[in-house]
Parts: sequence; C-alpha cells; structure tokens
Amino acid sequence: MKFITLTTDFGLRDWFVGTMKGVMLSIQPRAAIVDISHDIAPGDVRAAAFALAAARPFFPKGTVHVAIVDPGVGSGRHAIAVRTSNAIYVGPDNGVLSFALANEPIAAIRRIENERYLLHPVSRTFHGRDVFSPVAAHLSKGVPLTKLGPAQTDFARLRWPELRIRRGRIEGEIVYVDRFGNAITNVRNELLAGARNASCEVAARLNTRIPVRQFYGGVASHRAVAVPGSSGFLEIAVNGGSAASTLGLSLGSPVAVRWRVNPAD
Amino acid sequence: MKFITLTTDFGLRDWFVGTMKGVMLSIQPRAAIVDISHDIAPGDVRAAAFALAAARPFFPKGTVHVAIVDPGVGSGRHAIAVRTSNAIYVGPDNGVLSFALANEPIAAIRRIENERYLLHPVSRTFHGRDVFSPVAAHLSKGVPLTKLGPAQTDFARLRWPELRIRRGRIEGEIVYVDRFGNAITNVRNELLAGARNASCEVAARLNTRIPVRQFYGGVASHRAVAVPGSSGFLEIAVNGGSAASTLGLSLGSPVAVRWRVNPAD
Amino acid sequence: MKFITLTTDFGLRDWFVGTMKGVMLSIQPRAAIVDISHDIAPGDVRAAAFALAAARPFFPKGTVHVAIVDPGVGSGRHAIAVRTSNAIYVGPDNGVLSFALANEPIAAIRRIENERYLLHPVSRTFHGRDVFSPVAAHLSKGVPLTKLGPAQTDFARLRWPELRIRRGRIEGEIVYVDRFGNAITNVRNELLAGARNASCEVAARLNTRIPVRQFYGGVASHRAVAVPGSSGFLEIAVNGGSAASTLGLSLGSPVAVRWRVNPAD
Repeated sequence: MKFITLTTDFGLRDWFVGTMKGVMLSIQPRAAIVDISHDIAPGDVRAAAFALAAARPFFPKGTVHVAIVDPGVGSGRHAIAVRTSNAIYVGPDNGVLSFALANEPIAAIRRIENERYLLHPVSRTFHGRDVFSPVAAHLSKGVPLTKLGPAQTDFARLRWPELRIRRGRIEGEIVYVDRFGNAITNVRNELLAGARNASCEVAARLNTRIPVRQFYGGVASHRAVAVPGSSGFLEIAVNGGSAASTLGLSLGSPVAVRWRVNPAD
Repeated sequence: MKFITLTTDFGLRDWFVGTMKGVMLSIQPRAAIVDISHDIAPGDVRAAAFALAAARPFFPKGTVHVAIVDPGVGSGRHAIAVRTSNAIYVGPDNGVLSFALANEPIAAIRRIENERYLLHPVSRTFHGRDVFSPVAAHLSKGVPLTKLGPAQTDFARLRWPELRIRRGRIEGEIVYVDRFGNAITNVRNELLAGARNASCEVAARLNTRIPVRQFYGGVASHRAVAVPGSSGFLEIAVNGGSAASTLGLSLGSPVAVRWRVNPAD
Repeated sequence: MKFITLTTDFGLRDWFVGTMKGVMLSIQPRAAIVDISHDIAPGDVRAAAFALAAARPFFPKGTVHVAIVDPGVGSGRHAIAVRTSNAIYVGPDNGVLSFALANEPIAAIRRIENERYLLHPVSRTFHGRDVFSPVAAHLSKGVPLTKLGPAQTDFARLRWPELRIRRGRIEGEIVYVDRFGNAITNVRNELLAGARNASCEVAARLNTRIPVRQFYGGVASHRAVAVPGSSGFLEIAVNGGSAASTLGLSLGSPVAVRWRVNPAD
C-alpha cells in the first residue's frame, strides 16, 4: 500500500473529502488514505500546521502528506510539493506545511504548475480535488517532484512564538487547544527535564501555582495540572475536565513556568 | 481493491457505520470503503442525493455507491440496486439515488429481495447493516444485479427545482448549504459563461448586487460574492465568512442572477 | 488485509486518531483499520463498551478490536489484551472491553508489559499511540499474546443493570442513547417474543402507553414507539424525532414494559 495523509478544514459533513479520495484512488488504486483531521476550524492554517507536525513522525517513510487550509484558494498563492528525507508534503504555500517541515531535512521544493498532473478543468474554489489530490496520487505512484514545476528555494513559514527563558523561569504561550480542552504550550518538555517543584501560572489564575506532574491523574479530580504532553510540549489540563474553559485559556494565552533553582547550579 | 462509497445520515458517534464496514469486509475483504458523508442531517434525503451526485463523477469505474437516508426503513418502500455504464448504486428507492443517476445511462434496475444476499435475521430498523451492506459487498464481488430480485423500470425521483430563464436574467434557488456556509444554487455554471457584469440578488438583500467573480477572494474580506462552484453550480459565498448566516440563506431561498445583455445579441 | 477496529473518545478534530493509524501502519502495512467511533463522550467508558459490543459480532474472525476510553491513563490501571475464539481485544482494563467479552469464550488474558512491543519513550498521556496501537499492530502480525506480559485470570467488568421480571411486566432502564435520540433499554428483544399488546411506560409519561411495534413507522409521525432494536434490545423512539428529548430519556432512565398475559399460560 502507498500511504497518503489528509489534514484539511473541509469538514466531514459535505462530499469534499470523499471526493478527494475518489480522485486519488482513480489515479493510485493502491493508496491507503489516512485522515489526520478534517475538523480544523475553517481557515485556521496554524492549527492544521500544528496537527500535521504532531502526527507526521509516526507515519511510514515515504508517506505523502497533504495539508489544505487554504483561504487564498484561486488567488495568487502558489501550490507546492516538498520532499524531505522521510516523506513528501503537498499543500498551498501559506505556512500550513511549515511546522511539519521545521525539523525535516529538505531535499527539494517545487511549485505545482504542470497541468498534466491536475484534474481538468481546474476549478477556482476546490484545489483540494483538482490540484492537491491528483498531484499527491501521482507522487505516491513515483512521479518525481521535478516534473511538477519550477524549483523554489524556500517555503512560507508561520510565526512560532519565541520563549523568554530566564534562570528558573520560562515564559511562553498556548499554541493549541485540543478537543478535551487541554491547552498545549510552546514550552518543550526537555526544558523541564530535571526541574524540581516546577509549576505554571496562567493569566486567569496569577496567584495559583499549577503543579507539573507526569500525568493528568497526578492531581485530584477537577484540579489543574501541567504535564509533559505527548506532542513534545508542556500542556495544561484539568483532571477530568477542560483546562480551556476552566482556566480561560485559548490560543496565545500567556503561560509562565517556574521551578526551584539550586543555588549551587 | 474494490471501491465502495457510503453516504448516510447515521453519524459517526455510534457504531452504525463501523458495523456496516464490518459486514462488508466479512463478505468482501478486499473492499476499500470510502465515506462520502455520514453527517447528512437525519432524514434529509435531498442533501444526501446532492452529495452523492457531486462526488460520484470522481470515483473509479465500477465503484459501488451506497446511499442510505431512509426515514421509511422497515415500512413498504423498496430497496434497489441500479447499474449504469460507470458504477452501481444501492439504496432505498426514495429518491436518494436520483440526482446521481440523473445524468447516468441506466443499464438495469433491480429490487433487492433475494434473502440469500442479506444478513439474517433482517432487523426492521437497520437495513444499512442487514440489507444494503451485504448486497453492496456481494455486488463488488461480481454478483450480477439479476440475482437480487425482480426488475423495475424506473426509480423514485426527487423534485429538482426548475429555473426561470429570461434574457439577461435567471431565477433559481438555493439547493444546498455547505459546512462553510456557502449556498449552492441550481444555476449551472455554463449558463453564465460569457455573461458580462453578472450579479446576484437574494431576498434578504434585494437592493444589493452580489458580484459574480471567479473565486472567493475576488471581493474584499467579509463581502458577499457569487462564484462558479466546484460542483457545477453557481454558489453564493462570503469571503472569509458564512453566506448562509450573513445573508440568511437556506434551502429553497430564491436567487436571481442578472447580467448585461448586448443589444446586438 | 488484517482488520483492526478502533473505539475511542479521542474525537476527530485533533491528530490523535490519525497518529495511531500511522503507528499501526508503520508496523503492519497491510492493516485495514475501521473506525467504530471516536466520538464517545470524553471518559464515557460505558458508552464505548456498549458500542464495541454492538459492533463486534459483524467483523471478520481474527479482527483485533482496540477500545480506548481511559480516564486513568498513566496511573495504576493495567493495559490488557484478550483473545477469544473469534477475535482479539486490546484496551485499558477498566471495563471498556467487558460488554463485548460478556458473550465471548475467553481463551487468554495478558497484561501488556513487554516494552519490546511499545513505542519509546512511552508518553504518560497518550497510550493510544504508544501502547495500544503498536500492540494491536503486532498482534495483527501474529505476535502471540503470551509475549505481551503476565497472564491475568479475569478482566474488569462494568455493571450491567439487572432486570426485574414479573409475569407480564419487566422493569429495566435506558443503557444507551444514540445520535437520533433513540433510547436503547436493557430489555432483550427475545423477552418480548410473542408478547401480545406489549407497551412501555417511562417516568416522564407514566400515564401514556408507548406501543411496541416492529419498526419506527409503525406509529404516526412524531409519536413515541418501542421497537425491537438492531443491537438486540428494545429501544424507545419517536417516529421522525428524538425520543431522548421528547420523552426526557437519558442513561439510567427507568422503563417498564407490560403485556397482556393469557390467563391460561
């Protein structure tokens, strides 16, 4: 089987995603197509970028990843395909691929312009069906990137919020809220390795220290807790509840992590 | 692989769709089953019919399409299978297949009555599992339609709203609202090919002309626009927003399209 | 193909389910993975248990069923794999597998402890990805249960509400509410076989007899009806509406079924 993943904001209510699969299977009948998410909030390029980056390390080498959150469809933005040492990425060049590509060794970047690999006529509003699906299927059949169009030297990148790191204190922010209401920060788990008595503060609870534990059940039911999350970042949760609604956290909410510093260090 | 598509109002919250797939894979282990939608509003035969019609041209020849929105399950309505030159369609004979079949050359129509191809006992409330899934799987294995039951000469059709076409003016209506709030009309894109300065009027904004453009971004952010849609029909959108909520559009809302007529024509 | 099913409360909005599939396909590229549901309410172990039990009889022999609703992830609960004469079941030992296993002849129960079959490092919050997915994929490749860890003699069981059965009367309760608002009782269909003039009473409508019919359309539109449900239990519905909202039914709501008793019986 040839693996293709899909990350879009197309939803599952209409025929959009099913139609894309029909296009891909018409070209590459051996495609095994895996949905990462189609319930990205409409137009939320950043959430799609985060989801793809979190999922991609777990797919087989050679997988073709398609990500389409594309408010600029039909206008001037380019469509690109990017080959790395592990996988191929296909999508609009608006940053949706940039978090996944951040730690990948880039082998080639090509614009998608060769009409031969598109569905005709190309609609102006559904490039998922007419551009990205047929291209992904052709790539999974072994068509080389060089056939798609001219080389590009770089791809559009979304801003990744920088941390402010001081001795015993890191200031960051919320970068994703998941369906359970867990609020994922931009503080990488490694930064807290070995930190003793670490705790978090969030704006809505400035006087409350949220303890850092190893899992949600490390605090009593319905209490706030911060845990090293499975996507590689510290996340703030409420055991058995929603941190987002309980603590008023959303994208961009500031978070400060503090821990005890050994004076001898 | 043998392709089977599913379009239902069963939702994804319960075990209904997964169970149907278990039934199909038990009979045809090589089935590749593609979901078109399971989030059709409960009982909305027309939305399912539209979704299937929009998706079906993009599937490989020989695909078996199953559509089940079936408020009359267990009562007198017949179950049918229809073979065309491109595909096989399976569902209740309540019109749910009729939009997809409208432009397909019909080769055969059979009622599904042969107990041999059903799951036993046949429940009275879940024909998706006990009738349509096993029949679809058997058909994808090559069982001929003639084995299923007696021939039928026609199938139930849903009403498709007629256009009123005058010189420089078409009156139609909204036939589908998608997850983005785009409102799809019954005005085929071809009817506006070459029309200059075309614009739309909708009841809620009688004095506002909604310009026809080639893509959503053809107007400023949050402005209304009409575009030739990817399903073959003119659709009304709001760039970056929801036309349905902004303009108060829903199924059946009237739409008028006007354009400048060359006096020499 | 090797069949694996998934029943979780992970939702489809984030990357969790797609990532699990990536893990499984990396180990077992021939896996055909079927979603039973990912929209189980967060933490609702009982709903997941019911969904898996309703779906599992319809899957091919040898299927690996994975069920993960796991509020205790990372804490002391064990992960188990259970082999029966029909299938293999994988999940946390918190009762989520117990309804599906209730009528299955158990062949072996093993704790999942062998690090060799896990993803490393094992996160404390996403055992779906790091424990259950790789184990399921290895089992579908033929790894024997004995390799996973020590034997266990039993598995955790959820309470199944007992019926009170008298002559001509059964008292039970609602055990599941589906997406249509149909309320499934714990009264097995067989118990009413041959019962004449059977009717139901629910607390909100003590003076109203809800007739037992063979299908939803057996009563007028928008009237309440009880039908022998497709999951094997009597269910209360409203023809063309939602019994849950119309009749105020939810998990645990009491239901009484009465029927005419022949004095000669």
